[in-house]
Amino acid sequence: MALIYIDDLKNHIAEEIKISGWLYNKRSSGKVRFLVIRDGTGILQCVMVKGIIQDDVFNLFDTITQETSLHVFGKIKKDDRAPGGFEMELTNIQIIAIAKEYPITPKEHGVEFLMDLRHLWLRSSRQHAILRIRHQIIKAIREFFDNRGFILMDAPIITPAACEGTSTLFETDYFDLGKAYLTQSGQLYGEAGAMAHGKIYVFGPTFRAEKSKTRRHLTEFWMVEPEVAFADLNDNMELAEEFLEHIVTSVLKYRSAELKTLERNISILEKVKKPFPRVSYSEAVEILKKEGIDFEWGNDFGGTDETIISEGFDRPVIVHRYPAKVKAFYMKRDPQNPDLALAMDVLAPEGYGEIIGGSQREDDFDLLVQRIKEHNLPQSAFDWYLDLRRYGSVPHAGFGLGVERTVGWICGLEHVRETIPFPRMIYRLTP
Amino acid sequence: MALIYIDDLKNHIAEEIKISGWLYNKRSSGKVRFLVIRDGTGILQCVMVKGIIQDDVFNLFDTITQETSLHVFGKIKKDDRAPGGFEMELTNIQIIAIAKEYPITPKEHGVEFLMDLRHLWLRSSRQHAILRIRHQIIKAIREFFDNRGFILMDAPIITPAACEGTSTLFETDYFDLGKAYLTQSGQLYGEAGAMAHGKIYVFGPTFRAEKSKTRRHLTEFWMVEPEVAFADLNDNMELAEEFLEHIVTSVLKYRSAELKTLERNISILEKVKKPFPRVSYSEAVEILKKEGIDFEWGNDFGGTDETIISEGFDRPVIVHRYPAKVKAFYMKRDPQNPDLALAMDVLAPEGYGEIIGGSQREDDFDLLVQRIKEHNLPQSAFDWYLDLRRYGSVPHAGFGLGVERTVGWICGLEHVRETIPFPRMIYRLTP
Repeated sequence: MALIYIDDLKNHIAEEIKISGWLYNKRSSGKVRFLVIRDGTGILQCVMVKGIIQDDVFNLFDTITQETSLHVFGKIKKDDRAPGGFEMELTNIQIIAIAKEYPITPKEHGVEFLMDLRHLWLRSSRQHAILRIRHQIIKAIREFFDNRGFILMDAPIITPAACEGTSTLFETDYFDLGKAYLTQSGQLYGEAGAMAHGKIYVFGPTFRAEKSKTRRHLTEFWMVEPEVAFADLNDNMELAEEFLEHIVTSVLKYRSAELKTLERNISILEKVKKPFPRVSYSEAVEILKKEGIDFEWGNDFGGTDETIISEGFDRPVIVHRYPAKVKAFYMKRDPQNPDLALAMDVLAPEGYGEIIGGSQREDDFDLLVQRIKEHNLPQSAFDWYLDLRRYGSVPHAGFGLGVERTVGWICGLEHVRETIPFPRMIYRLTP
Repeated sequence: MALIYIDDLKNHIAEEIKISGWLYNKRSSGKVRFLVIRDGTGILQCVMVKGIIQDDVFNLFDTITQETSLHVFGKIKKDDRAPGGFEMELTNIQIIAIAKEYPITPKEHGVEFLMDLRHLWLRSSRQHAILRIRHQIIKAIREFFDNRGFILMDAPIITPAACEGTSTLFETDYFDLGKAYLTQSGQLYGEAGAMAHGKIYVFGPTFRAEKSKTRRHLTEFWMVEPEVAFADLNDNMELAEEFLEHIVTSVLKYRSAELKTLERNISILEKVKKPFPRVSYSEAVEILKKEGIDFEWGNDFGGTDETIISEGFDRPVIVHRYPAKVKAFYMKRDPQNPDLALAMDVLAPEGYGEIIGGSQREDDFDLLVQRIKEHNLPQSAFDWYLDLRRYGSVPHAGFGLGVERTVGWICGLEHVRETIPFPRMIYRLTP
């Protein structure tokens, strides 16, 4: 393909080239007219002067509406005042398709209006920047695990049973085999993978049919779940902090322009370096009490609690050793105190809440059977999972990171709905 | 983590180290006993000699069953006769958990038996190799697009309407919004992404509730779908052949050991170099007729037809310009002959059939509305999609590659069910 993209203009200075894209903006200043073109990779200011350019081309200015598709021809010169740092001296314009009156204008629109037009809203500079940062975060996630010899282990989306009850599951008919459910987590399958490959990561969409209408909830979201054989809770915490440091460093390095578009305070992100502070659940409860919160030991933290706990730290904080009662059946108990689970959550700074949840897993067959019973889960559904303890059980640990919450935090967004191209919420299924 | 992995032994020659893993095999030869250990990254032969090692350690040999988890301690030496090229002179063994009698033995098992034990079957050398090649293929896919500036555009899994009818869709209730469906393709969303970012790729699981019980069909499979603004059918064919060449080259370079485990004929893969042969649909029909097949112009090719067409070529073959009637509504017609769609399929060699399907898209608003009507599709469901032609329509093209069929072809497998960790078929939903 002979296309030249705007993000490659530095290699075409002083050349006569063609750029293909859409009109982003235009303005006129007497005899000088400016067309600002976007091609998906950047923005280019094109300039034409009456009398120098042919009149019929000059007059096209009036017919070119916002988002009209076109080819522009001209010479590229460096211009530090121009957005992107380059300018094109126009010699010709070819219109491909005149756009109808574009519904998204510089004026304020309601979020529902913009979400109805999500397929067009994606073109605006802010959404464009967010999704490029999302791309970078996902790239960094895979790089991190691939470079450490982890094997990708895709877990099934359609599953026969739930990890923890069926109340928040999307259900579907599965031929003659009865009901099936959309996965909430690939972890159990990931554990099978870790026993085969040593260290693996599951990475795919997960689903919650939860009626949560908060700024942190989507019904469909992407999760990455590493699982490591022979790892304990400490290894797990170390892996989590190196992982988050890698992600943030990668975005700072490769997407600084996009962070600037979002007016993100970068100094906060630059502090995301290991080691992260680590506090036990009990210490976190003390923090809440000191802040005057009436919190009872044994309960799970809510969003506000997480915000208050994280406010005392300048980087993500790891909270570990939660009461076993509020955590999942597969978590190993603390040998020092069997009321506690060897669990850990990582809370993002600035009130973004839990972005990682993980644990060391119960590796003892009898104890795991007992937990399944205590949680009133059907043992038959977990028989294959129990096989992992029958045949060569080993200590192992892993965690899950929610992609959208991580994107929201790194971008500094109010609501998680802008972190994915086409969000799904309890009241939104379109476009 | 202080773990040393078997695939890193070259950096530990002559060192006294610990390896953690599972017993893969053992054999005894008089006073010399061998334990073959797997740790997920490779296989290590460990040797101990009676009289040199402590008797209590030597005697552990009898209690260690297949898949027992253990730590082995000893000195590493190079040994070209040993599998993997290294051997450990044992000094100590620590058993973690004795495995019960392992159900998968070297004798022949039926496929359904092995599929019921898929969570354990993953540990066997053949399945291990396949999933490492799958990992490499997915890595190569992302590398290819990332290195060319494509942006990842995750399309929604839960969708309000079908691309092409609802008969082969998994359905679920979506809160108060009625029925929703699992995606069959992210392409339409990808087109919106291409108009925003120039060139994008969708990569995620897709679903077909098809009652197809062939060796090429899964109900849940992964698909990657690039989409490029300002690209035509020729650009699309070029992108597809460069893409496949990159994937195969990457597997040959980084997974030659795994291909050897699978006894794959590598010389066939080494021929996958661009340019690929290109034949029009009409030329492909002539090939069938020459081979004595009674095929009527205008029909779609079946699996056997594809095999016969591809047999005449030593690398993947691109078939282009199909009758519009057998192709989807969104494909652009050939300006030379409006009965033809600007479609292309890539057929893998050796009878593996279609692994890529794509086209240039209809970019004219009125023609697209007409096609939607001709296909009896509800226009309202596609109103957002039509917006992409209302506001700055441009020529564009893209394709979809099925990951599992590609893995099956590159690995040389009989059936697509072994190409994904936990396959879903009409008669299989577990484990």
